[in-house]
Parts: sequence; structure tokens; C-alpha cells
Amino acid sequence: MDGIKRIGILTSGGDCSGLNAVIRAVTFRAIGTYGWKVLGICRATNGLMERPPDIVPLDIERVDRILTAGGTFLGTTNKGNPFAFPMPNGDLLDRSSEIIDGYHTLGLDAMIGIGGDGSMAILRKLAQQGGMNLVTIPKTIDNDVGITECSIGFDTAVNIATEAVDRLHFTAASHSRVMILEVMGRDAGHIAISAGIAGGADVILIPEIPYTIANLCNKLKDRQEQGKNYSLIVVSEAVRTEEGEIVSSTDPFGESRYGGIGQYLANQISIRSGAETRVTVLGHIQRGGTPSPLDRLLGSMFGVAAVDLIAQGKFDRMVGWRDRQVIDVSIADAIAQYCTVDPDSAAVRTARGLGIYLGD
Amino acid sequence: MDGIKRIGILTSGGDCSGLNAVIRAVTFRAIGTYGWKVLGICRATNGLMERPPDIVPLDIERVDRILTAGGTFLGTTNKGNPFAFPMPNGDLLDRSSEIIDGYHTLGLDAMIGIGGDGSMAILRKLAQQGGMNLVTIPKTIDNDVGITECSIGFDTAVNIATEAVDRLHFTAASHSRVMILEVMGRDAGHIAISAGIAGGADVILIPEIPYTIANLCNKLKDRQEQGKNYSLIVVSEAVRTEEGEIVSSTDPFGESRYGGIGQYLANQISIRSGAETRVTVLGHIQRGGTPSPLDRLLGSMFGVAAVDLIAQGKFDRMVGWRDRQVIDVSIADAIAQYCTVDPDSAAVRTARGLGIYLGD
Amino acid sequence: MDGIKRIGILTSGGDCSGLNAVIRAVTFRAIGTYGWKVLGICRATNGLMERPPDIVPLDIERVDRILTAGGTFLGTTNKGNPFAFPMPNGDLLDRSSEIIDGYHTLGLDAMIGIGGDGSMAILRKLAQQGGMNLVTIPKTIDNDVGITECSIGFDTAVNIATEAVDRLHFTAASHSRVMILEVMGRDAGHIAISAGIAGGADVILIPEIPYTIANLCNKLKDRQEQGKNYSLIVVSEAVRTEEGEIVSSTDPFGESRYGGIGQYLANQISIRSGAETRVTVLGHIQRGGTPSPLDRLLGSMFGVAAVDLIAQGKFDRMVGWRDRQVIDVSIADAIAQYCTVDPDSAAVRTARGLGIYLGD
Amino acid sequence: MDGIKRIGILTSGGDCSGLNAVIRAVTFRAIGTYGWKVLGICRATNGLMERPPDIVPLDIERVDRILTAGGTFLGTTNKGNPFAFPMPNGDLLDRSSEIIDGYHTLGLDAMIGIGGDGSMAILRKLAQQGGMNLVTIPKTIDNDVGITECSIGFDTAVNIATEAVDRLHFTAASHSRVMILEVMGRDAGHIAISAGIAGGADVILIPEIPYTIANLCNKLKDRQEQGKNYSLIVVSEAVRTEEGEIVSSTDPFGESRYGGIGQYLANQISIRSGAETRVTVLGHIQRGGTPSPLDRLLGSMFGVAAVDLIAQGKFDRMVGWRDRQVIDVSIADAIAQYCTVDPDSAAVRTARGLGIYLGD
Repeated sequence: MDGIKRIGILTSGGDCSGLNAVIRAVTFRAIGTYGWKVLGICRATNGLMERPPDIVPLDIERVDRILTAGGTFLGTTNKGNPFAFPMPNGDLLDRSSEIIDGYHTLGLDAMIGIGGDGSMAILRKLAQQGGMNLVTIPKTIDNDVGITECSIGFDTAVNIATEAVDRLHFTAASHSRVMILEVMGRDAGHIAISAGIAGGADVILIPEIPYTIANLCNKLKDRQEQGKNYSLIVVSEAVRTEEGEIVSSTDPFGESRYGGIGQYLANQISIRSGAETRVTVLGHIQRGGTPSPLDRLLGSMFGVAAVDLIAQGKFDRMVGWRDRQVIDVSIADAIAQYCTVDPDSAAVRTARGLGIYLGD
Repeated sequence: MDGIKRIGILTSGGDCSGLNAVIRAVTFRAIGTYGWKVLGICRATNGLMERPPDIVPLDIERVDRILTAGGTFLGTTNKGNPFAFPMPNGDLLDRSSEIIDGYHTLGLDAMIGIGGDGSMAILRKLAQQGGMNLVTIPKTIDNDVGITECSIGFDTAVNIATEAVDRLHFTAASHSRVMILEVMGRDAGHIAISAGIAGGADVILIPEIPYTIANLCNKLKDRQEQGKNYSLIVVSEAVRTEEGEIVSSTDPFGESRYGGIGQYLANQISIRSGAETRVTVLGHIQRGGTPSPLDRLLGSMFGVAAVDLIAQGKFDRMVGWRDRQVIDVSIADAIAQYCTVDPDSAAVRTARGLGIYLGD
Repeated sequence: MDGIKRIGILTSGGDCSGLNAVIRAVTFRAIGTYGWKVLGICRATNGLMERPPDIVPLDIERVDRILTAGGTFLGTTNKGNPFAFPMPNGDLLDRSSEIIDGYHTLGLDAMIGIGGDGSMAILRKLAQQGGMNLVTIPKTIDNDVGITECSIGFDTAVNIATEAVDRLHFTAASHSRVMILEVMGRDAGHIAISAGIAGGADVILIPEIPYTIANLCNKLKDRQEQGKNYSLIVVSEAVRTEEGEIVSSTDPFGESRYGGIGQYLANQISIRSGAETRVTVLGHIQRGGTPSPLDRLLGSMFGVAAVDLIAQGKFDRMVGWRDRQVIDVSIADAIAQYCTVDPDSAAVRTARGLGIYLGD
Repeated sequence: MDGIKRIGILTSGGDCSGLNAVIRAVTFRAIGTYGWKVLGICRATNGLMERPPDIVPLDIERVDRILTAGGTFLGTTNKGNPFAFPMPNGDLLDRSSEIIDGYHTLGLDAMIGIGGDGSMAILRKLAQQGGMNLVTIPKTIDNDVGITECSIGFDTAVNIATEAVDRLHFTAASHSRVMILEVMGRDAGHIAISAGIAGGADVILIPEIPYTIANLCNKLKDRQEQGKNYSLIVVSEAVRTEEGEIVSSTDPFGESRYGGIGQYLANQISIRSGAETRVTVLGHIQRGGTPSPLDRLLGSMFGVAAVDLIAQGKFDRMVGWRDRQVIDVSIADAIAQYCTVDPDSAAVRTARGLGIYLGD
């Protein structure tokens, strides 16, 4: 598109690994190929809310060596929905127009927003309301964005969670214990099921499939009867029983609660089976490591493709990954297909095929 | 299929990471779900050639803890095409009938063969000639098997190669050097292009795209003029110049040659640019590490799915991975679509989009 | 010593990485060099309490490939002091004579015990009471055994803890947060101070040095005023304030308590500074990974040296590491010098020299 | 020392991991505690040779995040002995006075030099000739500097080499091969012996101990007869036979030669035993990774201690590590005790005790 001269880029929602690969690729492509100016917007849309807007001009020098750094060097936030922004006095204020003004004040011709489905919905609403040219890139350790096979950050999170399972194997076996690893995933169990299979867990509990504590304990008992002296459980941060009881380690805003699902399970198992049981909550460690090569590759691909969409004047699109190709789809379509673990997916069939207890 | 009682499993061709995850999943599924007997066949088809056949009965205990081990505990070989088997006296003998006899002697009802496209072609020919019920699972660090998005071993190989690029960055920058990393891939450059992008290389040379040494040196010169004191080159083990000259580090059997492409490039660059240039040949290290979680997950999925195909009486099929689903296709179709790096693929467009020199 | 024909080996106390390297080295040396029989005793002294004793005959084949496995394949326990053994009915029973009988029933000429200072004290008491020939090898992730520079398991634990700090840096910076990492070390802060310095923490709290929450918050405030948007705190599982208040995440038996020191600090910091603060409790992950090369090397050295002590008829000795040499000292001397973090040590001076807040 | 106001710091010789931890600690301590100015000198003494001298003013912001980066961000060189400096025309020129002038032109009160024994000897000669106040810090992946137990970079190099051995185990076992890993160490075999023991090698060859190819092959044959289908050899880059023949992969300047010791051994073994043998030359990868926690800790300790020596007016000293304490010794004493692998050391006794073939 001839008219493009200056674009913005922001990262929104919880941080993950691979965001800097996107920022780098966008900068390389926009400057190196098209000669545009690139402004990094700080702390998600909050940077556009400030006066003057809080931005970092990006050039190749600045982003050259960030490929291996976790997180996002632009900063991000998973608070601050601009349509209901929490003010110091506790009020929720609609500050959307300030963001839109920020965009236009900066003279941006387009903006790339990297975020999960929640962030993309907000960015899209802002774009439509304020005449912003928006392209989005999916990122989420939970891998719950629709249409794309992978989002940025998922592969690294699975790697870290699997490494934790690997480590717990040794200590579980040495002490004849039941070990519980609690991983992220309030609504989608992709991390748990992937790391659970890859790590050789005996039980995997995910939000999509209800479990009963009795059947779970039966699995542990079966193993004991087969002469196995230990068991490994991987559990998403919120799961529900067959009867519909939900136990969650976080509230709906992702803030952690004391003694969440992992501890709840440990108590139940201990009471029912007498097994020595220990819990590890993986927590923030699964967000922040050096990105895996796949996350860097995807990030690089998505970044280049997003810039190319802008160059072609294609807006309101999300880039995605399918069948080893970068695709683009309407943001609305992507958001509409929230992606949980499909009970008929290969992962579920594999877990069941391996004899893992995955709920009922 | 009601008739199945006993299956065999073998690994063939060069070893890679994730093979043990397949063996484990096959054993778990075949015994745990169907109650079959599972025989591990040693050293690819060579184990069927021996009298008595060289096999290991597999049970859950035996395979339970092999998930994190690289290589294949059944052994493998990338020598010994049974239709032209190298005898001690140097002759090439057709020993296919011995293998087929071995299969029937063992009373196998079906066999799972894990291999690359070469191995699969041989196994298929044996199966057709000898009435063997065959299902195959694609493995190759080169990721050159058709139809499936990924083969077992590729992700781990890319991880190891990228880690090497990451390390070379530091020493290249410290010493103001040009560093060349030579990775595997005689005919397909997937490892090189993936690790090159993920690792932030400046030049990537792959078998599919010819290069000229002059343009390569121009890229290095450009970087110097931009004030960059070092450059990183990732090169596949066999590449060709624009004029058609091929320099390869291995002969057609994969045996290494002295002073291969990496050293050749180093000499050329040194002569033309005077830059201090160093070569690292990654070699066997990229085959053998602890499998990545993705390779373990894929291996587990493929193993379960292959057993299920046998249970359904579907033979002459290869399992594969597309769009986050396990699929199955005819082995013939898979072999027919040898998968090199497509010049129009996302990877190529991304590399060019980032300003990497990728040939002409 | 000519009379030696048969030795036992056991691992005692909490598991850690490198124990299998010891078991392997003991087996290689005792069988390969001296032609002795080696019996692995299961689950610490508990294996000697059972009738028949629960043992695994060890040979080179059995231990050849365990070098890279975390934990101990003999099993261990950190419960079951034989002088006050917890019985199912809740009573504490002196079962020491059963263990001594077990030793003699097996016809052992000597025994190698791998454990921390607590285990070594118990083993020594048993040996003296029961005429057992004992050599011990120090292991503890806390590195609190006296005289030896390093114990088995410490290096791996520090590596894992540092890796966690590295990861938290990224997510702390991305979200402008205070991140707290709680690591093991009830009485000795070696893990915290080592990983804290190596990981670039801003605050390190250890049991040996009291802190005040006010001064801690001042450090965080200083950083904010210098324009740093985040801070990292590494804290041992039990620390005390200047006023003597102790907050601990575990009870004296190492069992975890809800909302331990990490959460306590987070609350305090949040109240006093308003900073967004998050806690990660590293937990069992720091025990169980693939041992670091140093832990494998030390384990191998200690194992060979312990066997050699037995061959020389030198008992009641602990092997240790000083000045790149394996030494041996009386067990009594080693136990007498419980090794906490010395306020005048290089680590403390370095932490203070770097401006880290380490207490008052 | 009251007079100190401005210090310089340089890194010299081959790069390694942990150098940036030193630079960071020096900067933090010199500025944060003493309020000095710190100048980073680029590319070893070469930076002092240029006019104006090539330096980077260091402050806390600049060095804060370099802790995890391999190599040295000041650059280094292992060429350019200033007393015989290679000029473009091929002449060797004494340029020592230019360096000394550079030091004084910058108004430096003292200088910290990080290097191996060769670099320290040169720096000391310069200091004595030119009235420079010098403190040195030992770094070398070879760990051959005297008096100190460890030098910066050794632990990381051993970690990387051991990881390579771990990986080769899998592929060696899968293919029934003899695998040879060639690591660095022209004159001292510390990397080879440490990684060889830690990685479970069957043969370790180091410069200090001559071997005979016949005995080496006997070891391989013994393993075969014990039913082991593969063997692993770790070899330093230069070793000699019993008869005194030296085969080296590098010339005396560390430049690599074609088909070095690894390939030589492979050929010999292949001819004599017929075993399928493969070579991996680890090369530059062992220099450049993210520093291990121990290298970061040592680097931080050494950096703080070196600044403190300057503050106390103690010059011509090298800091070192002994018995978990930072010590300082005269540079002359350290250089005088070049540290090879002692045939009576714990490492050698352990390797022999495990049945590893280590030469004759």
C-alpha cells in the first residue's frame, strides 16, 4: 500500500516467549524492505493512553539481538481493558478514545497487535471504533486461539512444563511418592495434555474433561498393584469433577489463590490412598524462558507476514499457522473459534491410548 | 481386526530422537488395549535376516522409562538394503526372502516400520513381495518425508542446531569473526533454514537454492559496512552454486568427506574478504539428544495411531501429522512427494523478508 | 583389606542429583578392581529393617547407564530415624538392632552410606553400636555438610534455581513486577545466595542473616528511582527478621506449609510499596533433574574413593572434596562442623559488593 | 587507595563464558562502592594501541543485563602479542610502548586484565615496563592456570562437552558404533577428563598421558566381548603415543588442521578393529554458550575482589579460587605453576578406577 509510512507495534496480555522474535521480524521487514518507520508502543494499549504516548522508536540495531530473550521488551499488561479501565479510585473508566487519539497523534498508518483472543477482541473493537488499521498476531501459552495451529509462546511453555515432569519423575521414584504438577490453562488444557503425554504422566486433568477423584485414585491403585512405586499427575490450574464442582488455582483474572487445585488433589489423594503426595506449582517459570526455536521461527514468520499484510492494505486480519504455511484470517473468525482441547483430538486419543487417566 | 495377535516393530535408517517414544506407545497400546504380543526387531530388517531372528519381546515394564532416551533401543542401521545387501566379500546379495521368512517364522500378523522415505520404500517392497502387513511411521531429522508436516526427530535436530547457532553468536561477536555452522541435510535444507532463522543467521545455504560466492561475500561486506563486526552462516551439508557446482560434505551414502562445504566456504570467504572465518561441523550431535517434547508427543501419537490402523486392518499406510491431527495415507503417496524446502514456503519468504542471504 | 568380600551401599535422606553416579562408581570400582560383591540396599536403612532385607545385587550391567538419571535408583527416605521409627500406630520405636541384624545377616563386610549430616549421624551411631564398617559420602542440595567444599546434588540444585531466576527476569521485566523465587534451604542459604548472585537477583534472603522488611522495601524503591521497572528476590525457605521473627515455608521435618515465606514477603511488599508482586516456589523441581557434569564427576570421584577406603580398612570416615582433591575425614569431625553461609565468605562479600540487599 | 579515580578493564585471549559476569561485577563494585570511573578497553590490548584508544565507558545500566551472555562484549583477540605484533606487511613489531601510552593517555590509575596464563604474562610485562597498576583475573576453558582451583569458562566448557558425550551415547548405541568426541585442550586435558568421566566415556586421551593404539583397541575389544555394542572416546585436541608421536588438531597458535587427532584415531581404529567409527569435533561451540551458574558466580566474585585489591593498592596480583574462598597471589607465582592434569590427581585415579582407558 503506497500510503504506509509509519506503523506501531504492541504486545498485550500475559507475557510469553517469542514476542521479541515478532518485534524483531516486524522491524526488519518494515524498515529493511519497505522503508517505513516503526514505533514500539509500551505496555500494550497503556502506552497509547499516556500523553505523550509512551513509545520506543525501533530500528534494526535496537532489535537485532533480542531474538533469544524471553518476554517482551516493549512491556505488556494483562490488566487495563481500555473500555473499563481500573482507575486509582477503583472506578472503571472507558478510556478507549484516549488510545485512539494516541494512535492518530503518532501519525500511525497501521498497527500490529500481538495478543491472545481477549486482547485481539479489544484491539479489534478499538480499531473499528477509531479507524485504526489493525493486523494481529496470536500469542498465548495456552494455545487457545482459533484457526491457527500454534500461537507464539505455546511451544516454549510445553517445553518448560515437560522438563518439570522429567525432573519430578526422578524424585517421585526415589521417594515412592505421588507427585502433582500444576500448570497453566484456566480454560484450555493444551499445556497439560501435551506436557503430560511428553513427560509420561500417569494422570492428566484438563478443564475440558471432568474427572472423579475415585477413578483417579483407582488409577493410582492400579499402578501400585502393578508394582509401580510412584505416580505423576499433571493438572491444569482449573478442573471440574464429574459432579460439576470446579476447583481453580486462580480467580477469573488469573490471580492465584492459596492452596489451589494441586493442593486440593494432594489432600484428597492422601486421605483416600494414604500415599505420600507432593505438589509443585510451576507458575511464572513457564512464561519466561529463552524462546524455543519453534517459537522464534513462528514469531519471525508471523512478523514478516503481518508487515506484508499491511503493505497489501489487508487489515482486520490475524496471521496464523496451518499446514506449515502462514495464513491470514479475519480477526473475528479467529476469535469466534476459541480453541479448547477437543475430546476427539489426537492428543486425547493418544492419552487414552497410553492408559493415562484423563477423566471420565 | 480380530486376527491380530502378534506384531513386530523395527526402526530403520539413521537414528534420531523420538524413536523410543514410538516404541513405547506402540507397546502400551498393543498390549494395554488389544492384548497383543509385541516383538521388537533389532537393527532394522537385519534382525529379521538372522536365524533365529534377533528380537526383543516388549512389555510395558521394558519400555516404560525410555521416553526421554535419544536414539532407538532396538538399534538401527542405515546400511544393508536387503535387495542389495553388502556381504563381507564385497558382493551385493538379494536377501529379501530371508527377511520375509523371518517375519513369517516369528508368526507376525503385522509390522510397524519406523523410517525415512528410503526405508519406507524398501519396507513396502518387502511387504508386497512377502505378504507382510505393514504400517509405517515417518522419522527423519531432515523432515523430507512427504504429506506429513513433521517427522519424528526433526524438532529435536532443529533445537540442537539452533542452540549451536546461539553459542556461536557469542564467540563470533567476541572475536569479530565469520562463523560457519554446517548442519545435516544432503537434499533438503529444512534444518538449516529453520535453525538459521531461529538462531538469527545472516546467511543460510540450502541444497534447494543455488548461491554465488560473490553475492554471499557482498552480504558479509554489507554487514561490515553497517558496523556489524561478525556474521553467522548456516549451511546444509551439500549445496550448489549458481553455476551448478555442488560441494558436499558427504558422499551419497552419507559418509563424511574431509574438508566439506563448510571448510570450502571458509576458504573462499577468507580469500575474498580477508575475514577471520571458522567452521563448526555439528555432526552426530544433532541426532542423538533427549527428544524434545514435541518429538515425544508426535512419537506417542504416531505409535498409538499405527497400532489402531493395524487393529482396523488398514495396511500399506503411513501415519502423519497435519493440522494438529494424526492422518494416514498410502505409503506410496507419501514416498512420491519427497519434501524439499519449497522456494515459495513461509520459511523462504521469511528468511528473505529478514534480509538473510539465502542464495539467488 | 584382605577380608573384604561383600559390601552394601545405601542412599539416605532427601533425594538429589548425582546419587546414581556414586552408586555406579562404587559398583565399577568394587567389582572391577577388587572383585567384591556389591549389594544395593533399598530405601535407606529401611531396606535393612525388612526380612529378608530389601536389597538389589549390583553389577556393572545394571548400573552402566544410570549416570544421567536424577534421584537414586535404590530409593531413599527422609523419614524413619531407626532409633525412633514411626510405627503405624503412631508410636516411635527403636529399631536400630533390626538394621544391625540386617547388615550382619547379609554378610556385609562394610557399608557405604550416602547422606547428609543427619543421615551420617544416624549411620555412625548404628555402626558404632552394631560393629558395622562404615564409610560415608556427603550429599545434600543445601551444601551444609562440613569440611567438604561440595556435597553431591548442590551444583545441580543451584543450576536449576538459577535457570528459574533467569526465566523470571523476562516475565518480571515484561510486566514491571517484583518477582519472588523461594528455594530450598531451611538452615543454610547456599542455594539462595549462589543462585541469587548467578541469576542477578536484587535481594537475597538467607537463614543466616536477618533482614528488615523496611530495608528490603527501600532497596526496591531505590531501584524504581533508578528507573528499573522490576526487581527479583531470591529467598530461602526459612528466614528471620532483625527482630527475630522467623517465617518458614516448612516445618522442622521439611513438610511444606501453606503460604510460606515467599507469600508472606509478597503480601508485605505489596502492602508497603503497592508493587505488583508474584511468588514462585521452586519446590521439588530443584531436587530431581539430570545431574550436572560436576555432580556426576564428584559422585564418581567419591564412589571410587569410598571403595578404596574400604580396601584400606579405613572406616568411620567421610570422603570429601577440597582443593580439587578427594580427602577423607572422620565422620564425627565432618558432622561437628555444620556449614552455613559464613557472613565473611566470598559469596556474602560479593553479594554486598554488587549492591544486592542481603539483610542487615 | 585514595588516589584511584579511573580504572580500565580488558579481556584477552580466546573468549569463554563468564567474562561478562566479571565485567559487570567490576563495574558494579567500582562505581557503586567506590565511585570510580570504569573504562572498557576493546579487543584486549589492541584497544589501547589505537589512537584514540578504543574504549567504552561502562556504567551500571550498560552492564546490568549481560550476566547471561556468553563471550565478552568488549571483544578480545588471541592474536597480537604487543611485543611482536603482526603487521599487515608480515613484520612483527614491538608495539608495547603504544599500549603503555594508551593507558596513561586515558588517565588510568589501574587496570584489570582478564586472561589466561599467556595473556597474564604479557600484561605483567607491560605493567612492569610501563608503570601500570595491574590486577588479573584467570579465565580459560582449559583450566590450566596455576594456584586457582578454577578459572572462568572451564565449568561451562565442561558442561557443553559433557552434553555432547550424552548425545553421542544414544547415536553410538543405536548404530553399534565407536564414537570419538574431540574437545579443546592442547596442553592440558582437564576438559577431556572431566567431560569424559561425567559423560561415561570408555576411553579418554589427554596430552599429559601417552597412549598406545594397541591398548586402546584392546579396551574396545574388551567391551565387545562383554557384549557392549558401542564405545565412546573423548580426546583432547593434541595427544601423544607412548613412542612420543604427537598428533594434534591445531597448530601451536590454535589454528585448526585438517583431519586432526579425532580423524586419525578413527582411521586407526577402523583399520585395526573394523569397527564403524565416527568423529565429532566439538570446536567453537564449547566456548560460547550462556555461562553456567558457577562461571557467573566465580566471575562475580573475581570481579568484586579485583576491584577491592585495587582499592587496597595491591597490584601485580591475580585473584583465584581455593577452598571456597577468593584468594590473591602474585601473578608471577600463578604463571609459574602451569596446571596440567596431575597423574596422581583425583580425576586420573577416578578414571582408572572406573576402568576407563586413559593411556598407559
